[in-house]
Amino acid sequence: MTAGPTNAHQALVLKLLRDSGPNSRAGLGELVDLSRSKLAIEVDRLMETGLVVNDGLAASRGGRRSHNVRLAPELRFLGVDIGATSADVAVTNAQLEVLGHLSQPIDVGAGPVVVFEQVLDMAAKLRAAGLAEGFAGAGVGIPGPVRSSEGVPVAPPIMPGWDGFPVRQALSQDLACPVMVDNDANLMALGEQHAGVARSVKDFVCVKIGTGIGCGIVVGGQVYRGVTGSAGDIGHIQVDAEGHPCACGSRGCLEAHFSGAALARDARAAVESGYSGELADRLAVSGTLTAADVADAAAAGDTLAGELIRKGGDLLGQVIAGLVSFLNPGLVVVGGGVTGLGHGLLAAIRTQVYRRSPPLATGNLPIVLSELGSQAGVIGAARLITDRVFSPA
Amino acid sequence: MTAGPTNAHQALVLKLLRDSGPNSRAGLGELVDLSRSKLAIEVDRLMETGLVVNDGLAASRGGRRSHNVRLAPELRFLGVDIGATSADVAVTNAQLEVLGHLSQPIDVGAGPVVVFEQVLDMAAKLRAAGLAEGFAGAGVGIPGPVRSSEGVPVAPPIMPGWDGFPVRQALSQDLACPVMVDNDANLMALGEQHAGVARSVKDFVCVKIGTGIGCGIVVGGQVYRGVTGSAGDIGHIQVDAEGHPCACGSRGCLEAHFSGAALARDARAAVESGYSGELADRLAVSGTLTAADVADAAAAGDTLAGELIRKGGDLLGQVIAGLVSFLNPGLVVVGGGVTGLGHGLLAAIRTQVYRRSPPLATGNLPIVLSELGSQAGVIGAARLITDRVFSPA
Repeated sequence: MTAGPTNAHQALVLKLLRDSGPNSRAGLGELVDLSRSKLAIEVDRLMETGLVVNDGLAASRGGRRSHNVRLAPELRFLGVDIGATSADVAVTNAQLEVLGHLSQPIDVGAGPVVVFEQVLDMAAKLRAAGLAEGFAGAGVGIPGPVRSSEGVPVAPPIMPGWDGFPVRQALSQDLACPVMVDNDANLMALGEQHAGVARSVKDFVCVKIGTGIGCGIVVGGQVYRGVTGSAGDIGHIQVDAEGHPCACGSRGCLEAHFSGAALARDARAAVESGYSGELADRLAVSGTLTAADVADAAAAGDTLAGELIRKGGDLLGQVIAGLVSFLNPGLVVVGGGVTGLGHGLLAAIRTQVYRRSPPLATGNLPIVLSELGSQAGVIGAARLITDRVFSPA
Repeated sequence: MTAGPTNAHQALVLKLLRDSGPNSRAGLGELVDLSRSKLAIEVDRLMETGLVVNDGLAASRGGRRSHNVRLAPELRFLGVDIGATSADVAVTNAQLEVLGHLSQPIDVGAGPVVVFEQVLDMAAKLRAAGLAEGFAGAGVGIPGPVRSSEGVPVAPPIMPGWDGFPVRQALSQDLACPVMVDNDANLMALGEQHAGVARSVKDFVCVKIGTGIGCGIVVGGQVYRGVTGSAGDIGHIQVDAEGHPCACGSRGCLEAHFSGAALARDARAAVESGYSGELADRLAVSGTLTAADVADAAAAGDTLAGELIRKGGDLLGQVIAGLVSFLNPGLVVVGGGVTGLGHGLLAAIRTQVYRRSPPLATGNLPIVLSELGSQAGVIGAARLITDRVFSPA
């Protein structure tokens, strides 16, 4: 474990090198607004920590050519994105480029001890493949609300056994590095902001459709987590007073009507009540139906699958229309495991938002699919921990 | 017109004196984080502008006693809050204390020229009463979206004739002072933050129920206006797909079902279809029914009036529950002309929010009525323009 930056100038240099790559001392001095001599002192201190190294001679700007500097190429971060039914684990360098990425099925209901055993196994595999010797930090996303100051899940509806589990503390012991924990939708937003479709956008929302539905909110370039860390918890907004019961104990919640779990349930119910197309064939073959089956069937032209996606997209679109009216964001990103649903889903959402939200809010509003797919969460997780590691203690 | 501050330290001194009153140079030095000698330079410059004056000797802190400083007591600001059916105009000093306040009925549909003639008459009356010689600035709230950089209303649904009218430019000529324009709900939020129930709260929403319904959003202590200035435009969130047609051209919008205008319409319809209680008597006497009549009748125990308020409060509560799930604010303030509806309305809103939003978001969430009533908007308007006048050009 290396020592970190000791002041705001050093922190800014580290984040500039992370986000924009190697740079000359002269270039950094302009961006940090420090004189050449003062910047040299800060860069030299960062070199002593081992976080920053020289990187060849910079292009000539007249006068003596200086060295470029960059983040140490051997620095490694771990990005972990835990969903209800799968976990993604990736190793990145300090510029958050993904060097290796594993994904495997899990059952979040098995509880944190079992799930983190699997996650640590995946991290060990990535290490064994030569991608990392150790980690300078790890970021972890979980599909529920998090008290982010402590890195602890709080009463997550789809995560029995996780309430209050000290994720940060436990993992930082196992991995021997600093750990930060956040809600998975917040990390997806951070990932899209760092390397995806939201790179130049200061105010946007990122809707993540997985087993449940969550939303990351970015205001003024910063993730907004709310006063108790539950901001973006849109899965339990009521869309039908007489609707399906929900895991949260309420009724008619958005995610009880549209989410990976709801799609699988509705597809199965349709088949069991006599529907005989593509989805019935899939159920007969595999004995189960998932949201991915619905997506594939819709892509193959199956009417029922298309109808399920359109109906769900209408409900989600109504909720997003309300958020757009309320927040007037500059971009809406739709992602998560169910984005295999693709353009049919996007069309339904757009129809609702453009019809229902005020023209002033929708006039220049792009509504787009995630660019990064399953990498958004792990890149966002790595970004979260580098924000911490690259800040003064 | 005095010159303004020339740097961020001077701006901070002015805002501290506005928000916390007279202070010693030593006290200001600590708050601004400047040495005594550097602070003295900034305070002396502010004295040259006339914005700041000496105010007697400060309490002894050992050594030579220094003068307190304060904002010039003769500085005057104008706060204007235009609603659909009434206008409030107030004169404040530089600490935003209301020295005089007039309210009179207007018809916003008569257009900006007619309305601002009335507003300027009201300002002239307040001046004639000796409350001000001239104004160092004026803030103006209007009940619709505003492009705040230019101070221009944008396609406001309940304000025919106002779209694109150069409010800021026209009024700053008439009043011979700087003018800032904002949405009325944003100014209500600013007012409650400055002098009302939200004084110590960094993240809150302020729902304003007037002829229409709007919402001010404060995030990290700053009003959040969205990327095109329409944030908080919740009046057109759909609450009933088969509902009443709305002035915006859509159907089933919140404010078509619950707002001052909707309450008056529903009360009249009930009376015309044969209802014979308190509201019928009021209509017979005055020939018209307003939201205030519904409030008074409910307070007098009228069943229909109580039922109209409860039903409307349920719908508004459902929308607020969604906002609470999404934003996880630290406080919800309910205000505007219709808050005469009072505790019956509040009970309906609370029931919906506490039932529907996640426990983590509602556990410590106060939902309260505005403390300032009709003064919230004018104090917020004065605050808006002092934020500008007390900033470097």
